[in-house]
Amino acid sequence: MSTDKLPSRSEHFSEWYNQVVLKAELADYAPVRGCMVVRPYGWALWENIQKGLDRRFKETGHENAAFPLFIPMHFLEKEKEHVEGFSPELAVVTVGGGEVLEEPLVVRPTSETIIGYMYAKWIKSYRDLPILINQWGNVVRWEMRTKLFLRTLEFYWQEGHTAHATSAEAKQETLQMLDVYSDFAINDAAVPVIPGLKSEREKFAGAVRSYTIEGMMGDTRALQSGTSHFLGQNFAKAFDIQFLDSNNELQYAWTTSWGLSTRFIGAILMTHGDDQGLILPPKLAPIQVVLVPIFKSEDEKTKVMSVVEGVKDELKDFRLHVDDRTEVTPGFKFNDWEMRGVPLRIEIGPRDVEKNSVAFARRDKPGREGKTFVSQDQLTAQVAEMLERIQASLYDRALAFRESNTHNPKDYDELREVVKSGWAYSWWCGDEACEQQVKDDTKATTRCMPLDQPQGEGTCIVCNRPAMKKIYFARAY
Amino acid sequence: MSTDKLPSRSEHFSEWYNQVVLKAELADYAPVRGCMVVRPYGWALWENIQKGLDRRFKETGHENAAFPLFIPMHFLEKEKEHVEGFSPELAVVTVGGGEVLEEPLVVRPTSETIIGYMYAKWIKSYRDLPILINQWGNVVRWEMRTKLFLRTLEFYWQEGHTAHATSAEAKQETLQMLDVYSDFAINDAAVPVIPGLKSEREKFAGAVRSYTIEGMMGDTRALQSGTSHFLGQNFAKAFDIQFLDSNNELQYAWTTSWGLSTRFIGAILMTHGDDQGLILPPKLAPIQVVLVPIFKSEDEKTKVMSVVEGVKDELKDFRLHVDDRTEVTPGFKFNDWEMRGVPLRIEIGPRDVEKNSVAFARRDKPGREGKTFVSQDQLTAQVAEMLERIQASLYDRALAFRESNTHNPKDYDELREVVKSGWAYSWWCGDEACEQQVKDDTKATTRCMPLDQPQGEGTCIVCNRPAMKKIYFARAY
Repeated sequence: MSTDKLPSRSEHFSEWYNQVVLKAELADYAPVRGCMVVRPYGWALWENIQKGLDRRFKETGHENAAFPLFIPMHFLEKEKEHVEGFSPELAVVTVGGGEVLEEPLVVRPTSETIIGYMYAKWIKSYRDLPILINQWGNVVRWEMRTKLFLRTLEFYWQEGHTAHATSAEAKQETLQMLDVYSDFAINDAAVPVIPGLKSEREKFAGAVRSYTIEGMMGDTRALQSGTSHFLGQNFAKAFDIQFLDSNNELQYAWTTSWGLSTRFIGAILMTHGDDQGLILPPKLAPIQVVLVPIFKSEDEKTKVMSVVEGVKDELKDFRLHVDDRTEVTPGFKFNDWEMRGVPLRIEIGPRDVEKNSVAFARRDKPGREGKTFVSQDQLTAQVAEMLERIQASLYDRALAFRESNTHNPKDYDELREVVKSGWAYSWWCGDEACEQQVKDDTKATTRCMPLDQPQGEGTCIVCNRPAMKKIYFARAY
Repeated sequence: MSTDKLPSRSEHFSEWYNQVVLKAELADYAPVRGCMVVRPYGWALWENIQKGLDRRFKETGHENAAFPLFIPMHFLEKEKEHVEGFSPELAVVTVGGGEVLEEPLVVRPTSETIIGYMYAKWIKSYRDLPILINQWGNVVRWEMRTKLFLRTLEFYWQEGHTAHATSAEAKQETLQMLDVYSDFAINDAAVPVIPGLKSEREKFAGAVRSYTIEGMMGDTRALQSGTSHFLGQNFAKAFDIQFLDSNNELQYAWTTSWGLSTRFIGAILMTHGDDQGLILPPKLAPIQVVLVPIFKSEDEKTKVMSVVEGVKDELKDFRLHVDDRTEVTPGFKFNDWEMRGVPLRIEIGPRDVEKNSVAFARRDKPGREGKTFVSQDQLTAQVAEMLERIQASLYDRALAFRESNTHNPKDYDELREVVKSGWAYSWWCGDEACEQQVKDDTKATTRCMPLDQPQGEGTCIVCNRPAMKKIYFARAY
């Protein structure tokens, strides 16, 4: 814990991010290149993300399971695009129990292959379908440039893997899970996201179609925050996932996969926040309410702490922390918890004891604007309502920010200009050459073709040929 | 799913275990030697174990975090006994991102070393202590002889790692966590365990003292089901975990570690069960109640299913499954769910509809003895009470089994005889030579010196010299 001032979020966004992650004790650098340690405050945030998603997965009929960390090297080679996409990023175990292994084992970068192998073993008949399995775990991708939460060698995630009897059912699953991610991002994380289809060049290695939820971070760059892939029969054919249909004919299954990782923590941190530090959405914040007692004399302390105990007891259904440290001042505590992003602070001092009041200080509206004095009566309802307001205001603010930084450039020159500090939403012909042109000229990539498309058609912002779809161009993490 | 009969549990215990794990779809063999796939039914059991433990960890002030999967090779070498204990079992990553690594990375077999490194970084003053962190994750030990859940190359576990300012505090933590494990095993898993101290030769590599909870499995062999280690200052000295005490003097911290793994699933399966299959303790069973509707005609079906829907609704607070499959008979379903160990079956047929009754069939008392007909009124209370009775009866039975198979041999000859099919509880002088003698003669090892010791002293069962402690000898997994 340190009282050094953070870099300005608007001027030095990247440095603000790096420092706030460390200072808030969300994560730390590990003594292994590119790896992170997720500290208790960061892991508590991840646990709340897990709960929000896991509940939704189970409500949509999925079950959790665990597949091995190690994958035989030749498994990856069975799906051509998959191995091409992942082979530069692999960590490889070549020695086990003191002996050089006959076949090296890959530390899983993702589990389509080994799960595909098991599904082929388990699935015999259409009665065994669908299989709807999710796995919470760790994966490793040998990234060269890393950043805490956003891109690390090892990261934590969930990966859903499903197998279906028909293409239509698998497509429906793919879109359903995209919708689950959107719903979670918007309603739990207050992160506005755009669900849409990735271009061919940006899709997952081995997928037929990849969908994404894209969020705009506080520096206007885009972050791919979760993905859902329709894999067609690619992995089914590579791993012989076949079943007897109701006519007793052998068919290949249709599969999907979908994942959301600790990267999403980065999305939350980079969507919300200010120069004072983090602002965590109440539904996911490890600490929703911090209670700071204020007193000078022993006599005041006795009176204040008795009210504090009562309030703590009343608010037991919230994730509440009482900061009763004696070695630091209330002012220090205010700054400390603001930096850590606790959505609501409650102050209780001697005058509050007299007046039967407490002070609320909203993290999303620092200073006088966010401060109110409320009665100690019906505090549970008042806190619940305030947290809801903070949750809604965070979402509204992030949405307004995205909207004000999203442009409809009239021509390619304007596109080149606007993607320097925002997103361009433009017609695109679908040609990879046009994507490449934009990338070469501006470093912006295609983010997604939103599911929600305008009527009609237009002309490609790059080449002026006819275009059927609008797409977002943006610089991205 | 198969209707093949299981091997007899009393006659072919090991084969009964292997087959029931596969048939109940708890786990499967992975296509990587010695690794397992934990299937949804098995993972749901693990999730319930996790919930039971995690709640207790948090109640005792611990927080969760995540440390890297990879550990630089030289970290392990810093603690002499630790590296000697673990180096034969390591999986080693030598290639990353297509390049041979300068220093190989070990896939963690346990995390004392890398966590020690981080604690040294985080801990400056006595105010930073204690640190009470737990991690849920996967570890890898290159075992040669493997068995599903009991011993696999990769397994899932939690590992707690704490650092304290004084030896007394660390010792207290070690015993507290042993007590947490005992409480969980006895009250949630209905697995009677004996908490005690390991001998020097059986302790964890790098520990000063290792404590264990030992359970007796259905074949009378012992299973080490959870361990808690007092590490003294061994890792603090190896990793420079130092702090300024309140007198501003630099001190080494005192650390502990404690773990319980998916091996505990094996403990549950091997403690309870019969020739029909598993018997899962109600508090942890993924499905506590299976509801089987029974009907012949369409008319009966309508009437029965209407009651089934009402019962399902009423019992929503239990983990309930309605088996409404039409392609198999009720008899098939009974066998299937018995094999899978569901503690309570409720049958509802046309006569139950008429009589406002349902049939309860207890898994722990197969056949007529466990069958009762109860009113449909106040079913929640009746189910809750029945599950408690089943939970208690499983524990009582397992305890009686252990007691009837635990012996106090009068001399070494009798010890040699009794450990063929049970445990010997005997005075031991503490000399490793006597342990070795027993092992050479009988394959039995020392399991633990229970915390709860008799008064006085005796003579060593092996060498007849004076002995201060009694210890259990048993063949073990």
